[in-house]
Amino acid sequence: MENIVVNYLEHPKLHDPIFIEGLPGIGNVGKLAAEHLRDELKGVKFAEMFSKYFPPQVLVHENGLIKLVNNEFHYVKRNGGRDLVILVGDYQGLTPEGQYDLSDRVLKEMEKHGVVFSRGEPGAGIVGASGLVLGLGKLYGLRSVCLMGETSGYFVDPKSAQAVLQVLTKVLGVEISFEQLESKAKQIDQITSKLREGEGQPEAPSKEDLGYIG
Amino acid sequence: MENIVVNYLEHPKLHDPIFIEGLPGIGNVGKLAAEHLRDELKGVKFAEMFSKYFPPQVLVHENGLIKLVNNEFHYVKRNGGRDLVILVGDYQGLTPEGQYDLSDRVLKEMEKHGVVFSRGEPGAGIVGASGLVLGLGKLYGLRSVCLMGETSGYFVDPKSAQAVLQVLTKVLGVEISFEQLESKAKQIDQITSKLREGEGQPEAPSKEDLGYIG
Amino acid sequence: MENIVVNYLEHPKLHDPIFIEGLPGIGNVGKLAAEHLRDELKGVKFAEMFSKYFPPQVLVHENGLIKLVNNEFHYVKRNGGRDLVILVGDYQGLTPEGQYDLSDRVLKEMEKHGVVFSRGEPGAGIVGASGLVLGLGKLYGLRSVCLMGETSGYFVDPKSAQAVLQVLTKVLGVEISFEQLESKAKQIDQITSKLREGEGQPEAPSKEDLGYIG
Amino acid sequence: MENIVVNYLEHPKLHDPIFIEGLPGIGNVGKLAAEHLRDELKGVKFAEMFSKYFPPQVLVHENGLIKLVNNEFHYVKRNGGRDLVILVGDYQGLTPEGQYDLSDRVLKEMEKHGVVFSRGEPGAGIVGASGLVLGLGKLYGLRSVCLMGETSGYFVDPKSAQAVLQVLTKVLGVEISFEQLESKAKQIDQITSKLREGEGQPEAPSKEDLGYIG
Repeated sequence: MENIVVNYLEHPKLHDPIFIEGLPGIGNVGKLAAEHLRDELKGVKFAEMFSKYFPPQVLVHENGLIKLVNNEFHYVKRNGGRDLVILVGDYQGLTPEGQYDLSDRVLKEMEKHGVVFSRGEPGAGIVGASGLVLGLGKLYGLRSVCLMGETSGYFVDPKSAQAVLQVLTKVLGVEISFEQLESKAKQIDQITSKLREGEGQPEAPSKEDLGYIG
Repeated sequence: MENIVVNYLEHPKLHDPIFIEGLPGIGNVGKLAAEHLRDELKGVKFAEMFSKYFPPQVLVHENGLIKLVNNEFHYVKRNGGRDLVILVGDYQGLTPEGQYDLSDRVLKEMEKHGVVFSRGEPGAGIVGASGLVLGLGKLYGLRSVCLMGETSGYFVDPKSAQAVLQVLTKVLGVEISFEQLESKAKQIDQITSKLREGEGQPEAPSKEDLGYIG
Repeated sequence: MENIVVNYLEHPKLHDPIFIEGLPGIGNVGKLAAEHLRDELKGVKFAEMFSKYFPPQVLVHENGLIKLVNNEFHYVKRNGGRDLVILVGDYQGLTPEGQYDLSDRVLKEMEKHGVVFSRGEPGAGIVGASGLVLGLGKLYGLRSVCLMGETSGYFVDPKSAQAVLQVLTKVLGVEISFEQLESKAKQIDQITSKLREGEGQPEAPSKEDLGYIG
Repeated sequence: MENIVVNYLEHPKLHDPIFIEGLPGIGNVGKLAAEHLRDELKGVKFAEMFSKYFPPQVLVHENGLIKLVNNEFHYVKRNGGRDLVILVGDYQGLTPEGQYDLSDRVLKEMEKHGVVFSRGEPGAGIVGASGLVLGLGKLYGLRSVCLMGETSGYFVDPKSAQAVLQVLTKVLGVEISFEQLESKAKQIDQITSKLREGEGQPEAPSKEDLGYIG
């Protein structure tokens, strides 16, 4: 099979769209932020990306049906404003080669839709898809921005996702509820409180040690 | 050489065949079940699949002759019923890329024979060939089912293989003897009993820990 | 994307140029030497090499802009003498395949400019880009030399870089200041002195143990 | 560059040649045997095989010149008898893919010269080039034999190499001196005697533990 297979469910006509990527990374900040934005703005899935660079794995739904792991593109139509494309997914590429190829493919698929890049992934920055979308995008003359949310990286970090989304939604001129993220943040707080009582708080890793993968 | 080489010994004409895959995995449940079914139904080998994704290894027979490690396709003709194709093998692909390519190739070879998929591998489920045959098959519009046998994963598990085959043979409408599997199960029981006396029973791994590879 | 992408900013006309390579390795001797030579001789960047064989990573500048990791070619024009091409970079290839492909590509890009090879990388020698430029160059009938600077490999080693450059600049017939390298060497000396007081001097690794990667 | 590059120095006309392969493996039995046979029979190098599947490494000769790591083909002309082709080398392929590709390439290069295979590598057997030359050769309808010399695998094993060569030379109908191998064997014996005095003899690994790579 080909290294990357992109499956279009629909070819939406988009108005000068902005691309927002949020894939799994440290603290899952970007993934949480992008998925929350998609849910709040009722994004519609229009394409799926499968790849040999992802694990050879299916996820099993509660009804017993399965889903081959992938990355998914969603669009959001906005009256009068620029439309959005939001990329979320189960995994990033497993190898350096896969990372380069997948980010390159995303950029080429998005070019078809006249996308301008705005990086909404906070847990992005240096290593991985987040960096490559910026870096390869620059080679192709695309304007892009990376929003990074501070995170300890010990747990999924809805607070950090919210902080990033507060900046991003202001820039985009949209308003969304943060209720879901705030509720997830409370759950995480309860878990970490219990852990602290039981075992003492783990030391934060020094910035030098944290080989960041976003 | 090519990444995957499929060698046909015979091109059987098959009547609306059902495909059953059982490759090595945790507890070897699927491999045991598929090999037992092939033996009981006197399956005939008609194709061999070699690949760079398998280990660079030959197996040495007792007569000193060798066999390059592979996966093998067998067919079973059934009067009045649908025919079967059974895939067994020495290994699954060693890398994610290999897993995707091999499962993809199996699906494409089977399409030639008008196969409908029924997954008889119980030790299947999530990661590996078992998942990919389901997941990629779905992309190609093929109907498939995965039967999973519960297993501790500590030993090869003929009991679990038998449990799966009891469901599968009912669905297929065939009757087979389970004598061989029951005899293997007794041997395993004797080995585990001795181990328990000697060292105490090992703790079962928690479901969360068990990153399943089938 | 292609495995290696070479981006030309300029196609300089070079007079019988000599190629000097200094990539990261043990003690970073070659990298230090080549970068110092480029700075002192005011080398002009004329090509960038990006690759899937490098880590999927961007570096963030102080102004917040990013740079996709790469290798960079610089030229130095010399009145009356032979011109120079200096290769420096953030990384060597991550895999054996990448090492071979990158060194092969460098040789083919340099052939276009009529380059004769002179290896200014002291931290070169056996394994990695340094060895391959020599070894593959020999296959293509190119004359090349490898200068190696002795180094403990515990720290970046500006003294060793200076020792190599003293030989190289004599051969090339250029004169440069070593002030920057001497100042870096002093800083390293101060750091190592403190470490010795604190923890005792680490034992030097035996030559046999040192699987050299330059 | 291509994955494998074969460089012919000469295209000898060979009379119904027999191919003998001896690459590095456990105890280096095959390598020792094949190199000894080449030296004794004054084999002439006629082709070199370079590859990305070998380490990115050059070897440095005492005169300071370098050699890119490779595998080398030598021929031996025999009056009245069948000629020989002997393959020796610095490395086997580093990956499963490399092992398959290199063995496949060797078989295809040898087919040009009408070679029949006789495996003189004792340290062969199961995993690696030795197994693949047999296994892939069988797929192509080539007759081949694998001679295996017993070895502890702790040290290079000239005694085992000699045992294998005594069988091989009888089959080939050649006579050679074993002086060099006997002298190497004595050196190894002296080293192991000293080690035993110093540290006690290491336990021999059980046959089950020895995942054999030849």
